[in-house]
Parts: sequence; structure tokens; C-alpha cells
Amino acid sequence: MIFMDERIRQQVDFIVEIDKLKEIVRRTYLMDGSRREDDAEHSWHIAMMALVLSEYANASCDMLRVVKMLLIHDIVEIDAGDAFIYDDKANEGKGERERMAAIRIFNILPEDQAEVYLDLWREFEERKTPESLFANSVDRLEPILQNYYTKGKTWQAHGIKPSQVLEKNRRIADGSAVLWEYAQGIIRESEEKGYFIH
Amino acid sequence: MIFMDERIRQQVDFIVEIDKLKEIVRRTYLMDGSRREDDAEHSWHIAMMALVLSEYANASCDMLRVVKMLLIHDIVEIDAGDAFIYDDKANEGKGERERMAAIRIFNILPEDQAEVYLDLWREFEERKTPESLFANSVDRLEPILQNYYTKGKTWQAHGIKPSQVLEKNRRIADGSAVLWEYAQGIIRESEEKGYFIH
Repeated sequence: MIFMDERIRQQVDFIVEIDKLKEIVRRTYLMDGSRREDDAEHSWHIAMMALVLSEYANASCDMLRVVKMLLIHDIVEIDAGDAFIYDDKANEGKGERERMAAIRIFNILPEDQAEVYLDLWREFEERKTPESLFANSVDRLEPILQNYYTKGKTWQAHGIKPSQVLEKNRRIADGSAVLWEYAQGIIRESEEKGYFIH
Repeated sequence: MIFMDERIRQQVDFIVEIDKLKEIVRRTYLMDGSRREDDAEHSWHIAMMALVLSEYANASCDMLRVVKMLLIHDIVEIDAGDAFIYDDKANEGKGERERMAAIRIFNILPEDQAEVYLDLWREFEERKTPESLFANSVDRLEPILQNYYTKGKTWQAHGIKPSQVLEKNRRIADGSAVLWEYAQGIIRESEEKGYFIH
């Protein structure tokens, strides 16, 4: 579009590019089990979760930073795809694929913004700051809720065991001891209700 | 779930309830025209737009407040449905339906949080603060972009004229003069390219 200056053109190109996140389908189902969720829906939902559950973060957090991380954390899957957390083979080389994706996609933005968003994405991945630890907690909690409310639909489809769910999600505790306690309760209750295949 | 205390139970009930936003389908299409967008995807996308385009707000904004408003603004459509902006009949009584929806849905939360989110939702609707004016700007800009990139798919389906698009969206200027100038450019270019039915 010729009437725009270069900066806003780059910003809109980025906004248009990330529309593709709506077409990256995850393994988890909507809470009513009707269909699988996409990455844009997931990102919206965990941003809402972070806001509503912020009081349970282990450490005081800059919530704008948490929400920004959650809104952008899966954008790399436009190129790298969604790797199912329990599929070790799909997760091989994932770090490098996602790093390349981040470089390509965030660099559609003007240079100053590309740097800011790349830093935010790395912060989420590195899990060192209070904000990234709490953001990772809610990112892991959503699929547990989705499985509980669909009577273990994704767990059953892939033969996932309670021990695997506990093992892969214990990092929830690093961001929120309360939410990890809560998640463990849901996993235990799911087991009691027969939501896992034996 | 018996192991939870009442507060977190209410918070999770709200998180589960708002999952339904993923099933409220809008009139606008994804940028590639493949299917219509849902409200959760829309909410994620305009929150990203607000962050990337924040420098164009007419007045300095608390961006956490802007993003919160955008993430929650459409939750009322779980009960009230999506009213197409150009359909005057569908918009009759919409205010009251949405007000009732807001009261029901936000009150699933603990009382203190219900109040905060109801206030935020009202602030978005009233369009008086810099944050709500800018939030409304990006909410209106997204469908214009979606129409431009799909060669007017929604405009054509409903026989919308350029004058209607200009009239219904001029409030973009109240939050951002730059984005309104930009939007007018897109509308003009869409007209030149034949994206409207004559």
C-alpha cells in the first residue's frame, strides 16, 4: 500500500502474518469437547487465566509483561507447528525450529519492536523471571482443565498416564505453588473418575 | 470439586464459562478468507494490535488496562450473540442484552473481581477514557484489515458501501488520528480495487 509510511506498513504486515496462528490446531479440545482448539484461542484464554489467577503467582509480577508473553509465546508455531507435549519425537529439534521462526516472524516488525518481542519470547522460553515462570504455569494449567472438563479426551486419545501428566507439568509449581496444588488435585480427581485409560 | 476453596472454584468456573467465546462466530473472515473468525481469536488479535500500534494512541495509555478491556470486551456475546455492525435491526436492544450478559457472566467471579471486570467492560462501552477510546479504535480497525485482505469478502456478502464503512468506523479517530487516517486510506484503496459491490 503506497500511502503508508514504512513503519506502519511493517507493523501491519506483522499483524496480518500472525493471523495464521488461528490455523494452528492444538491437541486439546474446547471445554465442551466439540472440536480442537487453535493457538489464537489458546493464547487469549491463558492471558485471561493469568489475569484472573494473578494473586496465586509465587512472586509479584508485572502483569502487562506476563500477558504480552502469553499473547506472543506461540507465534513461532506458525512456522514450527504445535508439538504435542507428550510426544518426545515431535519435540526433537523443536527449540531450534522455534528460534528460527521467532527470528523470521518478529523481524517483520520495525527493528526496535522486533528486538522487544524477541526478548519477550526468549524470556518466556528461559523461565527465569517471575513473569515468565507464572506465564508458563497458566500455559500448562489450561490443557489440564480442558482434559478434566472433557473427561480426559486428549489424554485418552494418546494413552497418556497420570504419572506423565504430573511429570510434564510440575513446572507449574515454579510459577505458582497454589496452582500446582490445584492442578494435582484435578489430576487425582480425573484418575478417580476414570478419565485415564488403564 | 471438593478439594478447592470457594474462591478458586469461582475463578475456574469463570475460566470454563468464557471458553464459549470460542464458539461465537463473527461476520469477518480470517485474512486468507478460509473461514469466519470467532470472538476468542478476534480478542487475541486486537490485543496484539493494541500492543504493536500503541504509539499511535491520541493520548498516553495504561496498556495493561487497554489489553484487559480488549480481552474481555466481547465476553458478553456468549449470551447476547454477535450483532453485525451494519445490521441496525440486530443492534436494537443490544445494549440491554449485553448489560444483562455482563452481570451474569462476570458475577461468576468472586465479588471483588466481578466488580473490577464489570467496571472495565463498562469503561470500554462508554468510550470516555483514553484507554477505552484507543481499545475501541483497534477493535474497529481489525475488520477493515480483514476485508481489505480478503478483497472485501464480508462487505460484498452484505452489500456494504464505502460510505457505511466510513460512517460506522469514524470513531477510530477518537482513539487514534493516525489509525483513522490509515483506515481511510485502506477503504479508499479498497474502493479503487473494486472490493465493494456497485
